[in-house]
Formats: sequence, structure tokens, C-alpha cells
Amino acid sequence: MEIDATRLREDLETNATFGTVDADVGRGRTVLTGSDADRCAREYLVGRLEDAGLDVRVDAVGNVVGRWTPPDCDPDAPPVAVGSHLDSVPRGGIFDGPLGTYGALEAVRAIQASDASLARPLDVVCFTEEEGARFGVGTLGSSVAAGHRDTEEALALTDDDGVTLRECLERIGFDGDAEVDAREWDAWMELHIEQGMRLTAAEAGVGLVESITGITNCEVTVTGEADHAGSTPMFERTDALAAASEFVLDLERAAEELATRSEAVVGTAGEGRIEPNARNIVPERVRYHLDIRDVDHAAMDRLVERCRTSLARIERTRGVEASLTRYRDTPPNEMSERCLTAADAAATARGVESVRLYSAAMHDTANLAAVTDAGLLFAPSVDGVSHSPREWTDWDDCARASGVLAETVRSLASA
Amino acid sequence: MEIDATRLREDLETNATFGTVDADVGRGRTVLTGSDADRCAREYLVGRLEDAGLDVRVDAVGNVVGRWTPPDCDPDAPPVAVGSHLDSVPRGGIFDGPLGTYGALEAVRAIQASDASLARPLDVVCFTEEEGARFGVGTLGSSVAAGHRDTEEALALTDDDGVTLRECLERIGFDGDAEVDAREWDAWMELHIEQGMRLTAAEAGVGLVESITGITNCEVTVTGEADHAGSTPMFERTDALAAASEFVLDLERAAEELATRSEAVVGTAGEGRIEPNARNIVPERVRYHLDIRDVDHAAMDRLVERCRTSLARIERTRGVEASLTRYRDTPPNEMSERCLTAADAAATARGVESVRLYSAAMHDTANLAAVTDAGLLFAPSVDGVSHSPREWTDWDDCARASGVLAETVRSLASA
Repeated sequence: MEIDATRLREDLETNATFGTVDADVGRGRTVLTGSDADRCAREYLVGRLEDAGLDVRVDAVGNVVGRWTPPDCDPDAPPVAVGSHLDSVPRGGIFDGPLGTYGALEAVRAIQASDASLARPLDVVCFTEEEGARFGVGTLGSSVAAGHRDTEEALALTDDDGVTLRECLERIGFDGDAEVDAREWDAWMELHIEQGMRLTAAEAGVGLVESITGITNCEVTVTGEADHAGSTPMFERTDALAAASEFVLDLERAAEELATRSEAVVGTAGEGRIEPNARNIVPERVRYHLDIRDVDHAAMDRLVERCRTSLARIERTRGVEASLTRYRDTPPNEMSERCLTAADAAATARGVESVRLYSAAMHDTANLAAVTDAGLLFAPSVDGVSHSPREWTDWDDCARASGVLAETVRSLASA
Repeated sequence: MEIDATRLREDLETNATFGTVDADVGRGRTVLTGSDADRCAREYLVGRLEDAGLDVRVDAVGNVVGRWTPPDCDPDAPPVAVGSHLDSVPRGGIFDGPLGTYGALEAVRAIQASDASLARPLDVVCFTEEEGARFGVGTLGSSVAAGHRDTEEALALTDDDGVTLRECLERIGFDGDAEVDAREWDAWMELHIEQGMRLTAAEAGVGLVESITGITNCEVTVTGEADHAGSTPMFERTDALAAASEFVLDLERAAEELATRSEAVVGTAGEGRIEPNARNIVPERVRYHLDIRDVDHAAMDRLVERCRTSLARIERTRGVEASLTRYRDTPPNEMSERCLTAADAAATARGVESVRLYSAAMHDTANLAAVTDAGLLFAPSVDGVSHSPREWTDWDDCARASGVLAETVRSLASA
């Protein structure tokens, strides 16, 4: 089975012209859902799917599916679906999403050109609004396809200007009437760039993702007393920032301790605000938003518990009031053994060095893992950079990982 | 010498009607330089100065001076000046500034009504833009009067809307052409509310300020690396917020250690910013603005040095880059022994319990201390609150402290 590296590259390079941005280094694009760039990217994809003889349909939230029904298969058998997304963050890279979408199409084209005999149809899928960059909800299209979110609820989401997803999709002509129900799929595979450096470190051409980490978000609030920074002696203060700084270090220490057992555990205070935030006033209140992830849900719970313990200690020792609200808790998702085994064998068959790892970034695959056998492959990312024009995956690596994807899909669909 | 407590209260209550704001608790006002409220407050003051027989003049930056030349004095002798300011912060209190301005006028009226024999004239002074709430530069009028700042430079300052001080003063008719040069004064006295609780703790009716703390402001920048909060393992991070949190605690510890020797030493990180400040990105950069004060300039230097040592340590242990820029350094100002001695004797003569203390808040007096004999008296502040409608000084305390002010001024001007 031959991957046409040139054809794959041409598709990716053409896709990169939609929403392209100026960048001193690298190549970037801004493709927000419902924009002209999104319409161009989708129309080009539909054309390329049709060029390959696929039957294209679009659902209500704009998910695009191209079906190939091999001549010798049962056309009513549950399909193996494969794909990714084409939207981007503002000034994102040209591989995050497109590699998985056009890698999927190239996989189908390679299987078509081979003498493989398949038992079931193949669906090439492009999901809407994976990044959540316009409507604020990531992996939106796949959450609807997996039945986790109501279609009408998704269509009613608004961007910062109050424009609904429904209006956006109507405007670009991608408000379809097909049904796309991932619960009817036999299996799902996605290829994505790693957005990390573990493949490079292992000198591997493909990453076999075992699980996607869960995410917990918490808001931590520490309240002291606003006082004049000049006339309030050191020993008469209840400084919310000093107290919150102890918390940040406690969080880091707890995450590091847990990480000696699993490197996937991370805890971050990345967003924060001081009130009143005036140079000459002792801080009254500090809020931090936490991002806690792991492949082990119990470890995430333990880290949240360590945060609560830290805050209770700081309340006692510093006289502040502290609270923690856990406002999001997405559990980890394990990939199916069936998909992992198929991908492992595929890498071996194609002579591509593989490494097993986890994904700490969220992907559409996390939604699908709950309703069908799901697998996720990673291609190497130069320097681990993504969401930036500096994001890069060598063309050879694109082709190599797409070859493993093709072999995996062929294997999954052959029975 | 009799203070007319009712007359003083009526002046303060009338002044409180200019720029008055709604407040659930207390009485507040917003009197920004050049506003209609400021014009009303100034016009009422001018009228009250003239009612008392004072010759009023206004200088280019709007400083108002009312001179009383006692019949038996040398009219050309350097005057004793006494006063404060009438502008306020947004939603400030009704005593911060006005007590010192109308307390000065009441002192002169009391001296006029007494049989005191003075050797020199008395100037009642109201300085422009003490709070810096509109033009961003505190103690502005007194800095010009003391020759620390050029008149034209002050007049060219702009507010947030680009309006100059010159335009503001022209609009309200307080762009005068008189000369007000504090270097020609024999002495200066100011009465102000304490904005602290040491008078209450000492059950004293008046505070004799020995020195006004210096202020150093620094910008501290800690730069790490922005990384994906999910996919960057704990041990591969250079987290600017964790590093900056260590610094905040080092600053606190160093200030507390120095404060065991002098309670005036304070160090505060009150204003800060995280970049990029996104929940799912490890912080790349944190900036804090520091406020460091003491009555001992060398101790301020030591605290800045401790900050530099902390940052150097954190650079070594955490691999961040850190910098500290000391962008403001106002040295402490000692009040003159002559004024302190006169005030001490005045409190004793009037049977008012006094306590010696320092001022950690900045006052116009700090500018004048460099060019003439200067003294500063404090009246008690209920609960130490200021810059708020809850700011309060009991009317009896206003009168009592004004009596000490009158006796001090009489004593200073008698020779």
C-alpha cells in the first residue's frame, strides 16, 4: 500500500493557503468556524473527497463525511471512520487538524489503490469547531456526533459578537441535513501532530496514544484585607497575594510529588487576577484558575484534595479566607485495545518506529472513545510547537504517519 | 486662644457638599482637579479666606494662598505658611485635605481673635492635585511651589483624556499669575488625618510626625517559558508564576525581618500581571510592582538588595530570567526640630495628649521639608480608614487638633 507523499503534501499546502497569515518564521493560518477561510477549506476538502470517488454528506453542525463503499463489502456494515478537523486557533499552524483530515483521505486513496479487501465502508470525517476558537467550546462537532451534546444547543452557541453557529454555517453553506452518528461506527481513528517532543526524543515516526488525559479546572480565591501599603505595618497585614503565592508553590510541589509516579500528572495556575491590583494597596483578593490533568482520574482527585489541604493550612496560618471551586471535571479516556493493537501491528508492518504515549491535549477522539472503538496516532512535531506559525511536521513524517494510519484503517475494516 | 469648633465644622460640612457622592455608609466626595466640584470648593475657600480678611492670590498651577499680615509685624518678613489640599481621590472622604485647609484657616482666625503678637505674616495655603487622581502625579502643586518641578512641565501634564492641567485651570478660573515660592517661607505646618490607628491606640488627640517615609517603587519581571499546561511535564517547565511566587514570599520575609528593628519598613507587591494569563498555558512572564517604604533610606536600600538577592537565587534554581528596575526613589523626609518642638509645646499648653510617629503616606509637607522648616500634625482617624466615604474624624478631634495647630503656628510666627 503506497502513500502518495506528493499528493498529501499538495493537499496540505493548498489547505494552508486558506486563512493564511503573515509570519516572520513558519507558516500560519487563521481558520475560524464560519469564516470565508473556513468555507474555502471545506469546499476544497469536499472537492478532493469527490475526486476520490467518496459520497459526501454534511450534518446540521457542519461535520463533513465522505464515504467510500468498497465494491466487495457489505454496504450496510458499520463503517470505520477516520479524520480530524480543519479549523484553527488564531494564527495557528498548518498541520494541527489538516494532517489528520488529509492523512485520512490519503489513507483511503492508498487503500483504494491497493488490493486490500474490506468488510465495511470507510468514512473520512472533518469535524466542526474542534479548537473552540470562535464559539468557546472545543471538540464541538464531535461532541454532537457522539451524542454528548444536543444539536440545537450547539447551533444556538454564539461568538463574541452574538452570531450563532447556525447563522455561520448557513452563511458558508455548510448547514447540512445528513445524520452523522458516531455511535453507529465500527471504529474511529485519528492522526494528529503530537504537540510535544516525546516522539523526537524516542526517535519514533509515530505515537500510539494509549489514553487522553482528563481535565479538571478549579477556581481558587484567596481573600485577605486591602490596606494602605505604606501605613500598614508588616505584622498587621492579611496579604492575599503572599497567601496565594504559598498556594501556587504548594500546588507545584504536590503535582511534582505525584508526577514521580506518573509523568502525566500536571497542575498549573496559568491565569490569575489580583484585586484591587494597585501598587500602594496590600492585595485584598487573588483568584487563580487551575488546570489539572492526568491519565488517572483518582490522581486528579488527589491533586485537588492536596490543593484543598493547602488552602485550609493557609487559612489557619495567615487568617485569609480561601475557597476552591471545581467547575470542570472531564475524566481521562482510554483508547480501545483493538485500535491500539491494530496500530501497533501497522507500524511494525510498515517498518515505522513507534512509541506508546498519552495525550495531554484534548482531541475529538476523546468524545468518540466513549461510544466506539477509538484510536489516536501522533506524528512528530518539530520542537513540540503548535498553535503557532512555527508549528511544523516534516513532509516525510506526514507521509510516514499517514502510511501507518492507512494500514491501521485497512486492518480495522478488513473484518 | 479659642478654636470655634462650630465654625470649623460648618466650613468642613459645606466643603463636603462639593462633589458629594452616594454612599451607604459615611460621607464621600469626588473632587478631581479642574472639575466643577473643584471650582466650587476653591471658590468657597477663597470667599472664606476673604471673609477672614486675608489677601488671596493664585499661582500658575492653581495653588491658592491667603495672607494675613498682623498689624504689628514686619510685612516683609518671611511668612509662616500653613495648609493642605482640597482635591480628593474618586469616592474619597471629607477630611483628607479639607481638615488641614480649614484647620489652617481656623487657626489664623483664632490667632486674629487672640492677643497674640506676631513677628511675621501668616499664609493659608491650598495646594493643587495632592492626590494625583487626575494627572497621575501626587503632591503636584507643592512640588512646583518648592521648586522641585518646573511650572510649564506641570501645566503640560495630561489626564486620561489628553486634557492638560493648564486647560483645566483656565476652565475653572484658577490659572493665576501670582508667585508662590515655598523657599521664601520661614516655616510650614500641615494638619492631616492620620489614616492609621496609632493615635487611637495611644489615646492621643494629636500626632507629631517626626518623619515621612521615603518610597521606592520597583518593577520586577520574571520570565520563564510559555508551554502547554497539559503536555508539558512538571519537570520540564520554567513556570514564571511559581518562580514569582517564591519572590513574593522572599520579599515578605525580608520586610518582616527588617521590621523587627523598625516597624516603618514595609515592602508590598500590590500590583501584578501574568502573561499570557491563560488557564491552559504555563505562565511565561510575571510582572510585579513593588512599594517599599521606611523612615530610614538605608533600610529601603537593604530591602531592595534583598529583593535582588532573591531574584538571583530564583534565576539559579529555576532557570528563569529575572530583573528588577528601581524606577522611583523618594528619600525619607525628617520634620524640622524647630517645628516639632513648637508642636510638642503647643500640645502640652493646650492639654492635648500627643504621640510622636511617622507618616507612611505621602503628603505635600514632604516637598516642603526640603526647602523650609516643616512640620506635620495628625488628627485621629476612626478605624484608620481613608480614601473612602467611611473615612471619619470626630468633630471634637478636628477642633482639638486645630487648636494645637493654631498654638504651633502662633509660636513659630512669634519670633
